[in-house]
Amino acid sequence: MAEGYFLAGRGTDSVNFDYFFRKNPFGGGFTIFAGLQDLFEMIEDFRFNSEAIDFLHKRGFHSSFLDYLKDFKFKGTLHAPQEGEVVFPNEPTITVEGNIIEAQLLETLLLNTINYQSLIATKANRLRHSAGDRGVMEFGMRRAQGWAVIHGSRAAVIGGVDSTSNVLSAYLYGLESSGTQAHSWIQSFKDEITAFRVYAETRPKNCVLLVDTYHTLNSGVPNAIVVAKEMEKKGERLSGIRLDSGDLAYLSKKARIMLDDAGLRGVKIIASNQLDEYIIKSLIDQGAKIDAFGVGTSLITGREDGALDGVYKLSQVNQRPTIKLSEDVYKLTLPGKKKIVRYYNGENKLYADAIVLAEENLSEIDTIYHPQYADKKSDVSGLKSEVLVSKVFENGKVLAPKKEVREISEYRKYRVSQLSEEHKRFEFPHIYKVGLSDALIKLREKLLADIKKKK
Amino acid sequence: MAEGYFLAGRGTDSVNFDYFFRKNPFGGGFTIFAGLQDLFEMIEDFRFNSEAIDFLHKRGFHSSFLDYLKDFKFKGTLHAPQEGEVVFPNEPTITVEGNIIEAQLLETLLLNTINYQSLIATKANRLRHSAGDRGVMEFGMRRAQGWAVIHGSRAAVIGGVDSTSNVLSAYLYGLESSGTQAHSWIQSFKDEITAFRVYAETRPKNCVLLVDTYHTLNSGVPNAIVVAKEMEKKGERLSGIRLDSGDLAYLSKKARIMLDDAGLRGVKIIASNQLDEYIIKSLIDQGAKIDAFGVGTSLITGREDGALDGVYKLSQVNQRPTIKLSEDVYKLTLPGKKKIVRYYNGENKLYADAIVLAEENLSEIDTIYHPQYADKKSDVSGLKSEVLVSKVFENGKVLAPKKEVREISEYRKYRVSQLSEEHKRFEFPHIYKVGLSDALIKLREKLLADIKKKK
Repeated sequence: MAEGYFLAGRGTDSVNFDYFFRKNPFGGGFTIFAGLQDLFEMIEDFRFNSEAIDFLHKRGFHSSFLDYLKDFKFKGTLHAPQEGEVVFPNEPTITVEGNIIEAQLLETLLLNTINYQSLIATKANRLRHSAGDRGVMEFGMRRAQGWAVIHGSRAAVIGGVDSTSNVLSAYLYGLESSGTQAHSWIQSFKDEITAFRVYAETRPKNCVLLVDTYHTLNSGVPNAIVVAKEMEKKGERLSGIRLDSGDLAYLSKKARIMLDDAGLRGVKIIASNQLDEYIIKSLIDQGAKIDAFGVGTSLITGREDGALDGVYKLSQVNQRPTIKLSEDVYKLTLPGKKKIVRYYNGENKLYADAIVLAEENLSEIDTIYHPQYADKKSDVSGLKSEVLVSKVFENGKVLAPKKEVREISEYRKYRVSQLSEEHKRFEFPHIYKVGLSDALIKLREKLLADIKKKK
Repeated sequence: MAEGYFLAGRGTDSVNFDYFFRKNPFGGGFTIFAGLQDLFEMIEDFRFNSEAIDFLHKRGFHSSFLDYLKDFKFKGTLHAPQEGEVVFPNEPTITVEGNIIEAQLLETLLLNTINYQSLIATKANRLRHSAGDRGVMEFGMRRAQGWAVIHGSRAAVIGGVDSTSNVLSAYLYGLESSGTQAHSWIQSFKDEITAFRVYAETRPKNCVLLVDTYHTLNSGVPNAIVVAKEMEKKGERLSGIRLDSGDLAYLSKKARIMLDDAGLRGVKIIASNQLDEYIIKSLIDQGAKIDAFGVGTSLITGREDGALDGVYKLSQVNQRPTIKLSEDVYKLTLPGKKKIVRYYNGENKLYADAIVLAEENLSEIDTIYHPQYADKKSDVSGLKSEVLVSKVFENGKVLAPKKEVREISEYRKYRVSQLSEEHKRFEFPHIYKVGLSDALIKLREKLLADIKKKK
């Protein structure tokens, strides 16, 4: 397509694309926006080297276009919210302005990056919601979809987990790393207590012993207690034990009693084994004595969804707003350059968002309308409001301040705290209002009428 | 853990790990093994550079161990089947022999690579099964889990799709690339017919027109027919049209009639929009006139599963076979060094596999036993058999011949053709027999008895 635009002499046409998704993942009430800083890095590195040019030449691309690509550098402008922001379906979360070729070339990179990280950050936030103030560790590298894990672990921490077992991402992004021993460690010694003892000797700090290799309550926990007592004599402390099979509610309660009876109230109980936000909630509801959860597959792959359905749609060409109808009514797009406005109620909680035209003045908007049913409307006059997006990339340079992952996670935490409990419910959450301005609705109606006229 | 082994003076202990999975993905009857060549490349590149050493130093690793890591190179031995092989749950698909440190360090890399590619190859094979000899294109990059897509597109082609829209993987692995225009192309022109015309002019080869931007049957298909006729006059040919929304069965039939009536029998109909193996099968059952399917999210993310549950378990230490019990009976592991044997029936179809000890002589095995119910057994005497695994990596070198992805896909096709239809069924497939040899069962019983004695 980029070649087509080039050959058609349209390389200097200016366009506006919107990134938005149509459905919150996991049946939830909101989505955590993530991936922006990684996207910036990829945009800055987005070049066609001579190998790439040679390859495209062999695939039949025109030499004039390849000459253009040799000097290609993305110089468009991006508007977006901060990473960690709470966002909602159909909002033009990222807008990309630029010439039609650069804006087109960015599509796949942007979708690939933002869709995945936002999915995982949202999943992590659900785990955090279930776990309350208990620990949550990302343990998914073994089951991650290949190299997805590099960005997945970052997104998981943005969304609210404490640490990752993925040391590469911990290195790249300054995340907390954590891990425990595997069954193979235990099996590799002649017996369980020797395995525990040697581990405690070589790794006395943050020592967590895996207690289910042979029999959790008859062997694992009693042996861990022996080693914990031996550590105490040396002035060391066993950090925890890990349960990785069986009934985690039952075993954790029994293990807690055994540890407490041995005077080891400080030894934490960590649980893993196919956990997700529902199982964690259920374990807590059952009174399980679990201090921290290790979550693998469901977190790093965003099970049950696997993908955020984000799309990248053209909304304006050379000042001309455009629209897409398609055969599915829900796929109708919003025309023109737009921005997102957020309204707050008196308690500083999120009240509603509005999608309005970029040039609209907030002070002149007093009503927002349901996107499909215009008679459903909300009065927003007098409410505190702010534009949710700002210019984050321009002329090949990142304008947004670079933030540490933990800062982004703090922002996410604050924003989620501004949502009402009904929006955070897992099952059938209250649908957050995202309205349109009168001006945007009128523009859409005009374009629809124009298309009907043409037919 | 690797540091622990090092500090405990166990660095030269020799071990055997088994890679196996417990459940075929997607409720299917088999799994396509993929990812091995990429794993080899990663093993060959597996080094700790000075940046990595510095990072680990800051995280508190011992300097003696870091000195060891500076010179680290994986020198272990891998046995595995060929890529594209049909494999089954609980089979020690890859075995890793080496010293305990190198074998441990490989775990995450191996699981991350093989689990994902095998998942996607298996999914792709299901799509191929549904589509028969119609085209299937991998269109998932926008919804892939970040950088997973690099290997995912490769695995998809191994599993049976024809091409990918991911040009990077096409470049890296010599895959066929294919793509079509997006809605934005259509919207960016003043009207649909101009958009079609310019596309056909700039890209007359493999020209596929997207017909659902405004109205498929009233606008898109009629305009595509006009352009196809204009192309014919220039001696060119429209390759196809693409439907991306609405009722694909209905629209494809109507579009086929319109194209045929215009004398355009050669113009193919391509369909996309949230397809998976079930929808493809349903469309074909309904007589949809679709020649090729573009499949995105469900293929590249392995929806509904998201992960193959492969694990990496220790089975032997310094000639001592080991076992893991855990609290879940199904997690019991198989001890010792083993190999997979495949038996064929008289029609050269797969009859059963057996997991046997590595040193066992095939000619002495005449019965194989159900892993849990020893009175369920199969007579395999006189059946054609072969050892399914061979030595593929040794002394830092790859022994397996390097193959093109298309060769691997051909092998996959042949192997799947040797499965009976009952094993290929999507719903409740016939469970393929994977038995154990008498010698392996006896070894497992002995180890279980030893553990009971210790308690």
